[in-house]
Amino acid sequence: MKTKVAIVGANGYSGEELCALLCRHPGVEIVAVSSRTHAGKAVGDVLPRLSGQPAIEGLKFCDSKIDVLLATGAEFFFLALPHGLASEFALPLVKAGRRVIDLSADFRLRSASIYEEFYGEAHPAAEMLGEAVYGLPELHREAIRKAKLVASAGCYPTSILLPLIPLLRAKLIVSDDISVSSASGVSGAGRKADITLLYAECNESLRAYGLPKHRHLSEIEQELGFAAGTPVVITFVPHLAPMTRGIHTTTFGKLAAGVNFAQVEQALAGAYASEPFVRFRGTLPDTKNVNGTNFCDIAVRFDERAGRVILLSAEDNLVKGAAGQAVQNFNLMAGFDETSALL
Amino acid sequence: MKTKVAIVGANGYSGEELCALLCRHPGVEIVAVSSRTHAGKAVGDVLPRLSGQPAIEGLKFCDSKIDVLLATGAEFFFLALPHGLASEFALPLVKAGRRVIDLSADFRLRSASIYEEFYGEAHPAAEMLGEAVYGLPELHREAIRKAKLVASAGCYPTSILLPLIPLLRAKLIVSDDISVSSASGVSGAGRKADITLLYAECNESLRAYGLPKHRHLSEIEQELGFAAGTPVVITFVPHLAPMTRGIHTTTFGKLAAGVNFAQVEQALAGAYASEPFVRFRGTLPDTKNVNGTNFCDIAVRFDERAGRVILLSAEDNLVKGAAGQAVQNFNLMAGFDETSALL
Amino acid sequence: MKTKVAIVGANGYSGEELCALLCRHPGVEIVAVSSRTHAGKAVGDVLPRLSGQPAIEGLKFCDSKIDVLLATGAEFFFLALPHGLASEFALPLVKAGRRVIDLSADFRLRSASIYEEFYGEAHPAAEMLGEAVYGLPELHREAIRKAKLVASAGCYPTSILLPLIPLLRAKLIVSDDISVSSASGVSGAGRKADITLLYAECNESLRAYGLPKHRHLSEIEQELGFAAGTPVVITFVPHLAPMTRGIHTTTFGKLAAGVNFAQVEQALAGAYASEPFVRFRGTLPDTKNVNGTNFCDIAVRFDERAGRVILLSAEDNLVKGAAGQAVQNFNLMAGFDETSALL
Amino acid sequence: MKTKVAIVGANGYSGEELCALLCRHPGVEIVAVSSRTHAGKAVGDVLPRLSGQPAIEGLKFCDSKIDVLLATGAEFFFLALPHGLASEFALPLVKAGRRVIDLSADFRLRSASIYEEFYGEAHPAAEMLGEAVYGLPELHREAIRKAKLVASAGCYPTSILLPLIPLLRAKLIVSDDISVSSASGVSGAGRKADITLLYAECNESLRAYGLPKHRHLSEIEQELGFAAGTPVVITFVPHLAPMTRGIHTTTFGKLAAGVNFAQVEQALAGAYASEPFVRFRGTLPDTKNVNGTNFCDIAVRFDERAGRVILLSAEDNLVKGAAGQAVQNFNLMAGFDETSALL
Repeated sequence: MKTKVAIVGANGYSGEELCALLCRHPGVEIVAVSSRTHAGKAVGDVLPRLSGQPAIEGLKFCDSKIDVLLATGAEFFFLALPHGLASEFALPLVKAGRRVIDLSADFRLRSASIYEEFYGEAHPAAEMLGEAVYGLPELHREAIRKAKLVASAGCYPTSILLPLIPLLRAKLIVSDDISVSSASGVSGAGRKADITLLYAECNESLRAYGLPKHRHLSEIEQELGFAAGTPVVITFVPHLAPMTRGIHTTTFGKLAAGVNFAQVEQALAGAYASEPFVRFRGTLPDTKNVNGTNFCDIAVRFDERAGRVILLSAEDNLVKGAAGQAVQNFNLMAGFDETSALL
Repeated sequence: MKTKVAIVGANGYSGEELCALLCRHPGVEIVAVSSRTHAGKAVGDVLPRLSGQPAIEGLKFCDSKIDVLLATGAEFFFLALPHGLASEFALPLVKAGRRVIDLSADFRLRSASIYEEFYGEAHPAAEMLGEAVYGLPELHREAIRKAKLVASAGCYPTSILLPLIPLLRAKLIVSDDISVSSASGVSGAGRKADITLLYAECNESLRAYGLPKHRHLSEIEQELGFAAGTPVVITFVPHLAPMTRGIHTTTFGKLAAGVNFAQVEQALAGAYASEPFVRFRGTLPDTKNVNGTNFCDIAVRFDERAGRVILLSAEDNLVKGAAGQAVQNFNLMAGFDETSALL
Repeated sequence: MKTKVAIVGANGYSGEELCALLCRHPGVEIVAVSSRTHAGKAVGDVLPRLSGQPAIEGLKFCDSKIDVLLATGAEFFFLALPHGLASEFALPLVKAGRRVIDLSADFRLRSASIYEEFYGEAHPAAEMLGEAVYGLPELHREAIRKAKLVASAGCYPTSILLPLIPLLRAKLIVSDDISVSSASGVSGAGRKADITLLYAECNESLRAYGLPKHRHLSEIEQELGFAAGTPVVITFVPHLAPMTRGIHTTTFGKLAAGVNFAQVEQALAGAYASEPFVRFRGTLPDTKNVNGTNFCDIAVRFDERAGRVILLSAEDNLVKGAAGQAVQNFNLMAGFDETSALL
Repeated sequence: MKTKVAIVGANGYSGEELCALLCRHPGVEIVAVSSRTHAGKAVGDVLPRLSGQPAIEGLKFCDSKIDVLLATGAEFFFLALPHGLASEFALPLVKAGRRVIDLSADFRLRSASIYEEFYGEAHPAAEMLGEAVYGLPELHREAIRKAKLVASAGCYPTSILLPLIPLLRAKLIVSDDISVSSASGVSGAGRKADITLLYAECNESLRAYGLPKHRHLSEIEQELGFAAGTPVVITFVPHLAPMTRGIHTTTFGKLAAGVNFAQVEQALAGAYASEPFVRFRGTLPDTKNVNGTNFCDIAVRFDERAGRVILLSAEDNLVKGAAGQAVQNFNLMAGFDETSALL
């Protein structure tokens, strides 16, 4: 018997990608897809890319209301909603005994005060922060398996955490001298009517934004701090690049005293040798090689003239950075093979 | 009477852009356009974008040979050739009393040994290194006016030097803690049959390359060192972005002890208040706003949590990064208004 | 003394391009740039690409009100407004003795009833339709010189009319068997917050739209009918292509009885031999060769198996298809060289 | 037990896509992947997108030699080779009792003389033309099931044949008045070092090519003629559009006498109601909705003013236009569900 799942807020880019992935999942039945604006419409009409997929044949968007959602019989709920709104669903769903994979930022922080510092408002459900697990399987696999509420890790954070964590854990780089430059495809900004996201505004355009204190810094520094065993502050500059998908991150770090570069390479190779979705390799990552996949590609180089370690990583912001990660978390929670629907 | 100019090697992207700009120059007569592969063909047939421009009406590519070039009567020669080849032309042209604007890297370094370190071969005309002037007007305007041979500054270097130089001169940032992440459009790699530059390889692709020791580092560090009054070593990571034109550079620096951020802003504002082609502004630079222009846009932000200064700059790699800069240098050398053909 | 001009509605793509072109015009002084939403802001802040241009130094957007506009002393007014709105300005400005170049569709038709058929509402100023001249210089040059109100020809129409008109005038192709497939860059849809125009919706996307009766058909068929001496009905399919600028049009026609293909080539060559902005050539047009220019490139091929003439044309929708054409019309009206600011 | 397959020539775009699809096929074991240039290298090193896929774990490219290929034990061979070369493999493989899916044009025509007319050389294995089946499942499903050699239909042909065939079969449109305008992504031209395919040559570029007699016309007209019961000659204009993947085709036809448009819609709806990979729908096709899928989307509109039927279709040139179609053919040949690995 298949596991029943529901997707709440399926008309954004992450929600659409989630539907596409779950359509392929051999152990899943999609029993509900919800949207406030599209309730009543056939899924294939709103998301024409998915039309003709047997898994959504005849399925119509239902309204994004708790009682409607609970009545569908779904055991697992994916929340692909804007931050702030997700917690309104997570709370009652978990209380009703359902398990939730939240793609928003609502439950990624352990500290309500840090949430307030970065998001500019009080956390809407601070009592659940202790229960939620940060949904990056490479870091928290065992906790995810048992979690009721998984806060699936964000796109920039995933691309920054995966290369840095093994080096901070082993104290191979200095923890207070880290600068990060990331570039994201435009889908990362969501499907919203905003002049700055128009084709003619983004094509032939590369620009930084959100300086100097991007919201994602809070979850990045939280997890880096856990790895380093000490608070970590980094400088992070996100850029918008003229592409639909993909995040490329370049991280500058300083080799710690007494460490040689071979140790850095070994730490990364060791950390990811048996990870199904991290490819630590000799060649430099390229977003085109990860787009449409759940892989995060990582490479490292050493600038011996400056004593700096350069970490490079690439992922699809909508897959490993959002929907794929959510499915990977779900697979762990539901007891499926971790790679189901993802290879 | 118009000033006679020749363009040597006009079928690459920089050479084509140079032709386009000089077609608009009210004080210039293009007397020769040369190319080894296209000699004898009409310029408008090889470069269809320029067809119909009165300034190249009837003009055919001549062969790239010194005697042919000298016979054209040109007083100024633009060399848009691969590095190594340019010096074969610069030497005899200067000896024959002509003035040369070289767009290649051949004469940008003052030290033949640094050239050899970065380019892997002995400099082909080391005796001229002392005579050449580094062609970045914002740094060396007066020397350029009188120079016989100007080594027009490169694309990455221009975008990195313009924001950093005023800060290093005033010792506002630490000179040994600078990391730079740049992204360039694909035209920066030239018009050459190379699989890695195909549309289907570069679209939806963002990737670093040339790590860890890009050749342009040599000229960047030379000019940074002059500004700082001490040798400077930086970490530089160039990326290829899916766009035809444009370079965006993000530079991470550390505020020097006892300096406050307002001084940084004042130093930049002061340095560029009367520069015609540097726009230091409050808004973040975007390649689309400089493409097709000779402007370099600069902004600065302060990450007070980490004590880091973030410099952002954008330019068109083929204009301020190549052909436009060459024309700006030429305007200074020939006594034209510095902005002729460039606004 | 320079000619004073004003641009009404300068914050769309055509208006911005118009500003950029007029900044370069040696005989023009821009005395006003208006916008309802940006009144009071510096032009260079709203349109950062133009910042630093001496011609708009210190210029602020004024309000788009007739009395404000008249008070600026401008002799010529460019209207870069949505259709329907333009006539509200054209009427009082012409009555006040000013000359107007309208980039909208408001005055392109000679017949108020055809306007109503295609635009779904009564014409707002039908009494002026007789006075306006259709602003395609290659067709109506002499009338444009003397006109008080020029309705600058649209982007699709220009790319369709220029190749077809000489053939219909000489009756070389059948007038009732013409099909047209055009593809436009996304800037053609304007700078408006519309989800279907987002980068992530348009990238890797090619789609037809506006079928089967696009509004521009009305002016196309009007001018084709004048050329053929008989009413002409065509089939027209516009497409949106993943690029910022450029229109490429492929037109299928049938060779008329007794005509050979050489006559077709001669008619086109003859028609455009001395036109400054039409390049009829052997090679196939490519939008990249016309982007940023006021050229329309045309080629023709013969499919002798099917007896069909294939016309191919390319132009920059924002230049020859909008702002450049407007300046070309203005040059004729004001007595400047027709190519001023356009080469 | 899984079915053993081999891919000959896997380093082009179609070959790579084929590997990606077969990696997901639950009933397939990839026993060999061949390439003349990459023999001996790990598949994941040459095709980094596929690295980490369990199905190619440890697999190295073998040499593209018949004896090597036969020794692998593969029962089915996919040939992803340039035309002309494929027949050198097809012939001996079929003679050795293997079954072949050829993605090239070598065996798509029934007539050796038409091959010679369009390809400019004698057919290399004319004796096999009678045995090969044209691999478009929607047309020849039953023959494909039993075929030894399937000539998988090409990208442009698939997008043109699927909308037209039902209308010609039912004589709803005139067979001698068909014009087709197609636009393809750049991957359609293959992974080859060619300056005209560079990013900076294709971006912001839309251009027709291959006029007036593209090679694919031969197979298109062959199949259209079979459907119409009479020879069909069409006019076909292919274009290159700035995107990696996707073909969009717009077809102009004339409604036959006595036919009304509703019959056209019914014919298409009826033909494709139960086809798993053809979506005939009310909304206009968009390449972005088919990219990465094996669907061909079709819509139809009527221009009643001109009496013309406008057919619109879109597909991913590398999937339904190449690799996906090949897998669909394979599924039929090998007795798998037709949609295996394709949904």
